[in-house]
Amino acid sequence: MLTDIVLDAMGSDKGPDPEIRGAIAACRQFPVRVHLVGPENMIRPLLEEHLRGERLPIHVVHASEWISMDDKAAASVRSKKDSSMRVGLKLVREGKARGFVTAGNTGAAMATAKMVLGTLDGVDRPALATILPTQTGSPCVMLDVGANVDSDPQNLVQFALMGQIYAQNVLGIPKPRVGLLSIGEEDSKGNALTRETLPLLRALEGEQIYHFIGNVEGRDLFNGRCDVVVCDGFVGNVAIKTTEGVAKLVSEILKQTLKATITSQVGALLSRKAFKNFKRRLDYSEYGGAPLLGVRGACIIGHGSSNEIAILNAIRVASQFAQADVARHIEASLSRIK
Amino acid sequence: MLTDIVLDAMGSDKGPDPEIRGAIAACRQFPVRVHLVGPENMIRPLLEEHLRGERLPIHVVHASEWISMDDKAAASVRSKKDSSMRVGLKLVREGKARGFVTAGNTGAAMATAKMVLGTLDGVDRPALATILPTQTGSPCVMLDVGANVDSDPQNLVQFALMGQIYAQNVLGIPKPRVGLLSIGEEDSKGNALTRETLPLLRALEGEQIYHFIGNVEGRDLFNGRCDVVVCDGFVGNVAIKTTEGVAKLVSEILKQTLKATITSQVGALLSRKAFKNFKRRLDYSEYGGAPLLGVRGACIIGHGSSNEIAILNAIRVASQFAQADVARHIEASLSRIK
Repeated sequence: MLTDIVLDAMGSDKGPDPEIRGAIAACRQFPVRVHLVGPENMIRPLLEEHLRGERLPIHVVHASEWISMDDKAAASVRSKKDSSMRVGLKLVREGKARGFVTAGNTGAAMATAKMVLGTLDGVDRPALATILPTQTGSPCVMLDVGANVDSDPQNLVQFALMGQIYAQNVLGIPKPRVGLLSIGEEDSKGNALTRETLPLLRALEGEQIYHFIGNVEGRDLFNGRCDVVVCDGFVGNVAIKTTEGVAKLVSEILKQTLKATITSQVGALLSRKAFKNFKRRLDYSEYGGAPLLGVRGACIIGHGSSNEIAILNAIRVASQFAQADVARHIEASLSRIK
Repeated sequence: MLTDIVLDAMGSDKGPDPEIRGAIAACRQFPVRVHLVGPENMIRPLLEEHLRGERLPIHVVHASEWISMDDKAAASVRSKKDSSMRVGLKLVREGKARGFVTAGNTGAAMATAKMVLGTLDGVDRPALATILPTQTGSPCVMLDVGANVDSDPQNLVQFALMGQIYAQNVLGIPKPRVGLLSIGEEDSKGNALTRETLPLLRALEGEQIYHFIGNVEGRDLFNGRCDVVVCDGFVGNVAIKTTEGVAKLVSEILKQTLKATITSQVGALLSRKAFKNFKRRLDYSEYGGAPLLGVRGACIIGHGSSNEIAILNAIRVASQFAQADVARHIEASLSRIK
């Protein structure tokens, strides 16, 4: 049995090329059927060219428009009624596919998914999660990093449960350690939101949350101390963009300093293999992009710079997400805390 | 004329050794008189040993106690009445010195400074600023990174003015570009706090804030786009600890990957000079620690891991802070927006 996954062919910065290559690679490796959505006249010739006569379960689904990175999310969702995102998500809503992958405009993808798929029972706000690499090698799920600003304690409790279910079912961590992002470990540390949320999460410990470790700090996102970190979407978005900024600064300085002397140019040459390994370990794309949790369906939003490998991984993760029935687990879990 | 600076001799993790060395180095390089505060029987012998008969303007001021990193801030400020921080800050309050430097417990230093020095007229909450390195090499002042949680728009406006004055008078940037930390550049992006603060800051543009660039994002902390970034203390603290976490992860992975192959061991050896340069450029201690803005006096809080160079730089910055009369400028600026 193949799992049907919809892929927005026009999402990434270099789309549809990485999408077509990623779809082909995914179909060769995993039991998936990929529905490539976008302008048929652009996609079909490229697909045929890459397939070179190979027969793979890839279907082209026509959509006349697409949403670009520069489009305003809210406006484009309303105006582009035949966008590849919208057409693709409709296939999931109609049960013709079980998961959706895009490397496109994050805001537009979230808004379209909420509108087309709808939210699960018991979910007040779907949350965007990101999967961070850590020192110990185990991934850390952080949510919300979308734009759920001014969340209330109930929102954070829902995020915690959704994050736990994702970590269990997709990342394979049986009892994920769940932390609340704050500014100190003691229970008294934090702002009004976290101080109100902490006792609610403690009350769920053991029953609904298997392993709640209390307040955690920014540095705990990367040291392997926890598997799921919960925060308001404003704070999460600042943290994730700060992470991008630091990573860019570090690699920029590294490049400059290595260029500065001949000795270190030689050094850099010899270390090339090590650097490649280094970059791979820091690369988010290995984890397949950001899952949108709380909508009716499996939805993965990749980075605009996604390449073939990133698309391949996103398809794999969407398939696991759908297979494990994460959405049903979320509904069941949230119904128990009502 | 020498500028009198008080140095908490017992602040850093390895105190009083780095403090004594740093004080000696500072007195050799800058026109400062350093008041070293701590248990006299611990400090004097070490100081004599390091001075080897050299005559420098360093005074030892006795304090029988000190606050350690493990002490709870609020409790230790109350109970340790003869702590080196408290005795040292009293010298500033009494006009016997113009600036205070500690590499000790940040929470305790902030609480003691607020209590002993008091806040400036017009300042509702003093703010802790941090100086970040950027890709362009110019520093970026971010505040608050202390613990002013649940700030209101007026607090953020005061932070903006204080940060601007620090950037002008201590970092020597005539018209600092001031940004408001948010989750998107458009004015509509942000949470309730930033959306309320943005128009207040825009209204001060030109008159009180020379160059307001609107909303900025986490990545703009490190790309040199702005000189001053304003945020609530919860968000700032998360951002700064996330930065520490990413930096640690990156250097850990780099170390591991370089160790993994012999070729790269050789490479690493050859690149050593470059790495040293790299580390120095990322090192915060060059900027001398975190200034506490809004109290009556110049107060610099360094990292617990401060070495001699970090202490030297902190003394230099405290002296500039005092010389430039940052506190008086802050009062004057805030009185104009009443």
